[in-house]
Formats: sequence, structure tokens, C-alpha cells
Amino acid sequence: MLGVWPENPHQSQVLRLLRDNGPASRAELGDAVGLSRSKVATELDRLLERGLIETVGPAASRGGRRSSIVRIAAATRFLSVNIGATTIDLAVTDGELRVLSRVTERTELRLGPTAVIGQALELINKVRADSGTTRFTGAGIGIPGPVSFREGVPVSPPFMPGWHRFPVREMFSTELGCPVLVDNDVNIMALGEKHAGIAKSFDDFLFVKIGAGIGAGIVVGGAVYRGANGCAGDIGHTAVDEEGPLCVCGNVGCLEAYFGGAALTRDALAAARSGRSDHLAEQLDQAGTLTAVDVAHAAAAGDPVAIGLVRDGGRRVGQVLASLVSFFNPGMIVIGGGLAGMGHALLAEIRSVVYRSSLPLATGDMPIVLSEMGDQAGLVGATRMVSDHVLTTT
Amino acid sequence: MLGVWPENPHQSQVLRLLRDNGPASRAELGDAVGLSRSKVATELDRLLERGLIETVGPAASRGGRRSSIVRIAAATRFLSVNIGATTIDLAVTDGELRVLSRVTERTELRLGPTAVIGQALELINKVRADSGTTRFTGAGIGIPGPVSFREGVPVSPPFMPGWHRFPVREMFSTELGCPVLVDNDVNIMALGEKHAGIAKSFDDFLFVKIGAGIGAGIVVGGAVYRGANGCAGDIGHTAVDEEGPLCVCGNVGCLEAYFGGAALTRDALAAARSGRSDHLAEQLDQAGTLTAVDVAHAAAAGDPVAIGLVRDGGRRVGQVLASLVSFFNPGMIVIGGGLAGMGHALLAEIRSVVYRSSLPLATGDMPIVLSEMGDQAGLVGATRMVSDHVLTTT
Repeated sequence: MLGVWPENPHQSQVLRLLRDNGPASRAELGDAVGLSRSKVATELDRLLERGLIETVGPAASRGGRRSSIVRIAAATRFLSVNIGATTIDLAVTDGELRVLSRVTERTELRLGPTAVIGQALELINKVRADSGTTRFTGAGIGIPGPVSFREGVPVSPPFMPGWHRFPVREMFSTELGCPVLVDNDVNIMALGEKHAGIAKSFDDFLFVKIGAGIGAGIVVGGAVYRGANGCAGDIGHTAVDEEGPLCVCGNVGCLEAYFGGAALTRDALAAARSGRSDHLAEQLDQAGTLTAVDVAHAAAAGDPVAIGLVRDGGRRVGQVLASLVSFFNPGMIVIGGGLAGMGHALLAEIRSVVYRSSLPLATGDMPIVLSEMGDQAGLVGATRMVSDHVLTTT
Repeated sequence: MLGVWPENPHQSQVLRLLRDNGPASRAELGDAVGLSRSKVATELDRLLERGLIETVGPAASRGGRRSSIVRIAAATRFLSVNIGATTIDLAVTDGELRVLSRVTERTELRLGPTAVIGQALELINKVRADSGTTRFTGAGIGIPGPVSFREGVPVSPPFMPGWHRFPVREMFSTELGCPVLVDNDVNIMALGEKHAGIAKSFDDFLFVKIGAGIGAGIVVGGAVYRGANGCAGDIGHTAVDEEGPLCVCGNVGCLEAYFGGAALTRDALAAARSGRSDHLAEQLDQAGTLTAVDVAHAAAAGDPVAIGLVRDGGRRVGQVLASLVSFFNPGMIVIGGGLAGMGHALLAEIRSVVYRSSLPLATGDMPIVLSEMGDQAGLVGATRMVSDHVLTTT
């Protein structure tokens, strides 16, 4: 691949097919692209000549002239960098987006962008040396906050002092010398689910991340829909109660003021201190603090207060999703993120509210499911995002 | 045009340009389509040969060989049929979607589809004779309820007994012998705003119809987004209050249970009968009944109760739109439909809630405006919808 782009839409289509489905015979590619044998031969020869693809061997005969099998050049490397609240998660993939090496390190977003991106670049040099990569064809960067996708900069991300409008894309692309795209983590996870997850065969779906915050990735026609300013999918600050608690955003009654990491920690501490939950009180005694993960464990262990918190949260999420289902009529909803580990109690509550409150025509055959990809969604999604970009004729 | 389709994407692009921008020189079309002079000549000759376009005359010289001006064949006719709760509104346009003749007749949806469609077909025969049209290139049909766009049938439309899954598209296409598309009125109005209204230069926007019911048309990338089952945009049954009044749909606290034609009539009658509004009481005395239009008039005349009803409604609509703005991040919101005539009191309230409650990044430069097309939106939108279809290579 080595930094060269497809010259026309046919080459682009061939490269995407090889990325998504692996090696294929010239004859199969001709069929898939809808070109004559001689025309597809011209495009494939050109891709071979430029080193974007390579021949693997002869194909099984289909009668007539023998075809050969080609694949995306084995030297193709994509980079995935997922910056989270407390970790940097990094992976190198081949041209078929298979993870070749991966490394995770603790970080603190609050240290500011220069320190965190510096740490990421050191990590990149390390995996680059380990994997013998001379250069990347493209890199996808995920950030846990709103991003102006067009400019490649975070925009007013909460809890990330110093990151507002910091030139994240520019800093990475200068160092890496390859195309770089930056997006928020939720959109990237949605793309991961589209590429290799449960939503693979869906063109229009919602990915909902429930973690420290709550956000949605919107997929329309197989691609992420980002909206007019790139901030589509912000459902964490949907008002679920006009008289609700004050939210960090300054409004009252936002979904995130009820559910998500911070709200659960607040409610768990209250339950532990008031003596309503022995389980949480014990955990607080032992660890000196409580997190959303403790609530998940307590709920799994049968603690009624913790189960109540999960149910209440699921009901609020369900309320918001119900109106989005009527509005957006998705083919599927995939629930992921750290708190998706709360699993079936949460899912049952969300389902119950959505199926009860949305338009019957919209929910008729719409599954609401838990992600099966875990933290792979972000890793795969970031390389899918940048490879979509690199493999498109400009 | 006469029922023949473009043979390739270049022809399709040429025909759309001529539809949207009117006559153009061969040289301009070559530039716009990005083809060489000889290649565009081949496609234009083919379109001339097949009668889809025709030459108008010579173009002004740009130096070099003289170019000629072409346009969509003058005999091209599209048909627009908008079936409303109480009227059938019908128009014939030319290939540039200019209305050539138009007719409106009262009807009653409750008479059932056979009677209403029969009446529409009679009207069509009348305008066909009047306008000397031998055949239509395509017809777009609007229905005031949910439609399965793929199948061309209404799906459980409220207040339309007998219409559920009635083969509307088939009935029209059999009679007309041309391609027919059926969609709900809101999607069609959204397309009208995209084609010739205030949203002409926007690719991602929301059209919100406030009339007997409340619904949204979602435009993504310049085309209507219909969702997995074709029912996207149903915002009338978004819950705005868990303890609210019972809605016709069986849930409680839906937006339409608070605002829209039926809710306003209910509230206006209550205000007139309880003596809270002299203005409405007088109107009730005179006419024997009250409608949403009376509320609009009373509000315009300064009746405080009527103004209160409009404001309350605007606030509820604003609440729903605020969460959709954060979710969908549209470039613009256009408010249309019968009650948009309530004008600026309604608009002010909607704006106030949306701008206060949505993500600042999403509302930064997002206008919320009243439609300027009135009932033209549906007429133009229906022909835009079917011409988009006819002018696409299959």
C-alpha cells in the first residue's frame, strides 16, 4: 500500500473487497466489481504494478483460462490508537485489519494532550520496531469526547483540560507521515461493530456506549453519520426529567445525571453510607472507594440495591432510546462500553421500555443486543475508519 | 422522457442537472459531469436520439467550436398526487418540476381507499385532458400516514380505515402505466424543501410538520432517510411526560397528546366552555365548533389563553427537538404544516427550548426557520421523489 491511493472507483472497490473478504481470484473480483475479464485485468495489473496488491498463487480452475489469486499487499499496515480516560490502547493491523500486535498502557488524560500524545508516539515507535513496520498506510485515532472530524481536533471535551481544539490529527500525521483520522470513541466502536461485530450485516443501526459517559454512534448506509458539525450521537445530555438532578453540563435531568459511571458512583456511595446496601458498604470499607464496576459486581451477586440502580439506569436509557427508535427506525441497537458488562439485567430493562414505548412498526423485528466485541470494537473500528478513507478515490 | 431511463450514471447526472438548473450548453454539462468533450457528446447524442433531451439553440461562444444548448424534453410530465385528510391536491409538472396545472378537490379519507383513489384517478384524467398529456414519466403519491416505501402501501395509518396495506402504488401504476412511488406526506414535504425551499443548500436537515399530527422528515446527504422499516421520523409519539394524558396510540404523555390539531381542539373547547377565553367562547357560539385554526386566529388577535396554548405546544415540540438536535446534529430545522401558520409565537418558544437545552456545538450555527413553501412543498416534493427514482440508473 505504502502511501499510494486507488486511481479510480474500480480499484477502490477491489481493495475494499480484499480488505473485507481476504484473498480472491481475479475471476471472482471481476464478477464482484461487474467488469469484463479484460477490464478487471487492467485494473489488477495496475494495482500489482504499484505494489498495492500481490499474487498469492493460481486459483482453482472454473473452466477456461486459469485465474490467479490476489490479496492486499502483505506489507500493508494500519495503526489504531484508542485514547481512553485512563489508558492508551494501540494496535497494528495488516491490510485485512487483523491485529498483528497490540499494547496497552495506563495514562491520565488530565496530564494534557502534549504529554498523552507524546506517550502514545513512544508506544507507537515501540510497536513499530517490534513489528518491523517501516511505515503505516493510515492511522485512526479515538478520543473519549466530542471531535470536529473535519479538522481532527477535540471540541470542548469534558474532563480533558487543555485538549480543546488541540491539533491531534496534525501532531500524529506529522510524526507518522501518513493519513490520520481522529474521531470520538463511540463512532469508532460503531464502525468496529459494522466491520467485524454483530452489526456486520446491518446498514442502519445505533451503537450505544454506556461507560463513564453515555453516547451513540449512528450508522447510516454502512457509514458513520456525524451530522452538520460532527457531533451527532450525543445522547448523554438528553433531558429525561425536567425536575431531575443537576448535570455537569449545567442543565438538569440529563440522562448522564442519572446513569453512567459518575452517577452510579454517587448513588453507590449513598447506598453504602446510608446502610441500605451491606454489600456496597463492605466493598467501600475494603477499598476505600466505590466505582460503577462495584455496582455491576454487587448486582451480579444479587444485592437488591445494586440491582435497583442497574434497573433504574436501564429504564432511563430505554426512555431515551425509545424516542430515538421512533425517530431513526434503526435496524438494530448494539449496547457496548464498560457498563454493558452489567449484562442482562440492564438489557432486559432497556428492551422492556423500548419495546413498550416505541412505534410497533419500528420495533417489529429490531433486535437490541449486547456487543460481543468488548474492547476490540475500538481497535478494529479505528483502522476501518482510516482504511475506508485511504481506499477511497479522492 | 417517455418511460425510458438513463443508460449510465453520466446520463443520469446530465438529466438531473437539467432538471434542477434548467437548460445548459453542452460545454457546461461536460464541465459539470467531468467528462471530455467527445465523451459528453456521445452521451448527449444518445439522450437526444432517445428523446430524453432536446436542443434549444446555439450557446454563446466560449472560443473554439460553437456549443449548443440542450434541455430536458419539453414533453416530459411528472404527476404529483397529495392525499390529505380532507383534500386531494394534484399537480402536473414539466421535466424541470415547474407546475403546469393544478387542481384540488375535497375528499374524505374515511370513505376508504377505493373511493378516494377512484376520485384521484378521475381528477388525473381531467388534468391529463386539460394539459394534453399523453403519458407521465413518473408519479409521486403522498399519504398522511405511515407508508412502507418499498412496498408502496400504507401501514396501520391512524384514522384511515381500510387503508392498511392497501396496494396504493400498484393501483396508480396500473392505471397510469408509469413508475409510481408512494411515501408519507412529511417525507415528501422535506424533499420539496430540499428541492426548492429554504433548505435547498442543506444536505442534512430536519423538516418538522405540525398539523393534525406532528412528524419529521429526515434528510441525510440530500436524500430522505427512511430507516430500516421506512417509518423513521415518527416524533408525534415521543413521550414528553410519563404522567401525561392518554394518547390515541395507547401510550401516555405523547407529544401529540399535548399538541397538534386534536389536542388543540380539545384544549380550545375546554377554554371556551369554562369561560377562560371570551374570544374562543364567542367563536364557539358562532360556529358551533372550534378547530386548531381558531386557536391560531385567537392567538394572533392577542387572546392570552390561545397564546398560552401555542406557547405550551411550542415548548413541548422544543423539548423533543432539543434531544433530536443533540442526537442528529442537523444543519437546519424547517417547521411547516398547517399549524406553522401560528408563526412567530410558536417559533420563538421552540427556538428558546432548543437553543437552551441542546449541545452548544450542535446549535452553534443551526437555524430554526418556518417553511416558506406552504402547500407547494408537498407538490414539488412528490415529483422530486419520483424524478430522482426515474433519473437513476437501475
